[in-house]
Amino acid sequence: MTIIKRLESSARMSQAVIANGFVFLAGQVAPDTSADVQGQTAQVLAEIDRLLAAAGSSKEFILSATIYLADISTFADMNKSWEAWVHPVAKPARATLQALLVAPEYRVEIQVTALVAG
Amino acid sequence: MTIIKRLESSARMSQAVIANGFVFLAGQVAPDTSADVQGQTAQVLAEIDRLLAAAGSSKEFILSATIYLADISTFADMNKSWEAWVHPVAKPARATLQALLVAPEYRVEIQVTALVAG
Amino acid sequence: MTIIKRLESSARMSQAVIANGFVFLAGQVAPDTSADVQGQTAQVLAEIDRLLAAAGSSKEFILSATIYLADISTFADMNKSWEAWVHPVAKPARATLQALLVAPEYRVEIQVTALVAG
Repeated sequence: MTIIKRLESSARMSQAVIANGFVFLAGQVAPDTSADVQGQTAQVLAEIDRLLAAAGSSKEFILSATIYLADISTFADMNKSWEAWVHPVAKPARATLQALLVAPEYRVEIQVTALVAG
Repeated sequence: MTIIKRLESSARMSQAVIANGFVFLAGQVAPDTSADVQGQTAQVLAEIDRLLAAAGSSKEFILSATIYLADISTFADMNKSWEAWVHPVAKPARATLQALLVAPEYRVEIQVTALVAG
Repeated sequence: MTIIKRLESSARMSQAVIANGFVFLAGQVAPDTSADVQGQTAQVLAEIDRLLAAAGSSKEFILSATIYLADISTFADMNKSWEAWVHPVAKPARATLQALLVAPEYRVEIQVTALVAG
């Protein structure tokens, strides 16, 4: 039988879905939107760390990340937090694009797919 | 040998691709674009139901959904159709962003990844 | 133990990540940005061919593609290169949207997920 595990489900979505050895996270945004894009990125990455741990994974098992920036001119600032955080020898595939997000105070949203640690 | 099954292939793409127990759908748009975003979302979700059924899956097996809105201010209207449709105890990971779509009459496009039912 | 293989890793990302029989590529852009969107698309698809080959896959094993165009009005021009390239009987799921990319000279970026050839 197919087993799918879900974490932190709301009316609309789950924050993490685990199946067949993979972990799919919802797009993460910063809890404190008073921060600038560098600060929001650090918060987003901390949320990703937290959810991956709950799902039995961690950042070294991230396969792919899609990064949405409300303003692409903040690319270098986002990367400061990203490069300080990403695993030194286990880097995911990645794409970054500009997109308006659900609320104007969100400067960055990141969605990742990972492997369950084994 | 690697087995990949494809449904409804055109010159450019397949509407569904099935491999290794996963189903990847093409981004779905509304057949009747005279509808508003709530109506278009309902149509898109009906297309997703139809394609998942053809692929041997269903909405409770959706792992992840990416929702593109031509105008992010229609987020609440999209969610009316989404929340009426999404499985009550089997909710996917999700991300929503604003993006212009292939034709201006498309108000919403949704792309999902699911598991084959087992 | 979980085995993840990574190709062409930089400070920020890997260009290809291989795990559990799947290949995740980073979003690919054109090396020569003096080309128009049709020419840039052909370059991007050549990069995808190159990375898939290095990962033990090829275009007939692509499951899903997301295409980002800096200007959605170039959709038909992108498709000229896409249709000349895509495998005649093995077409992936696909979604196309408009999004500003990391540098204004990039007219198109494509991210694909494939299966390792078996």
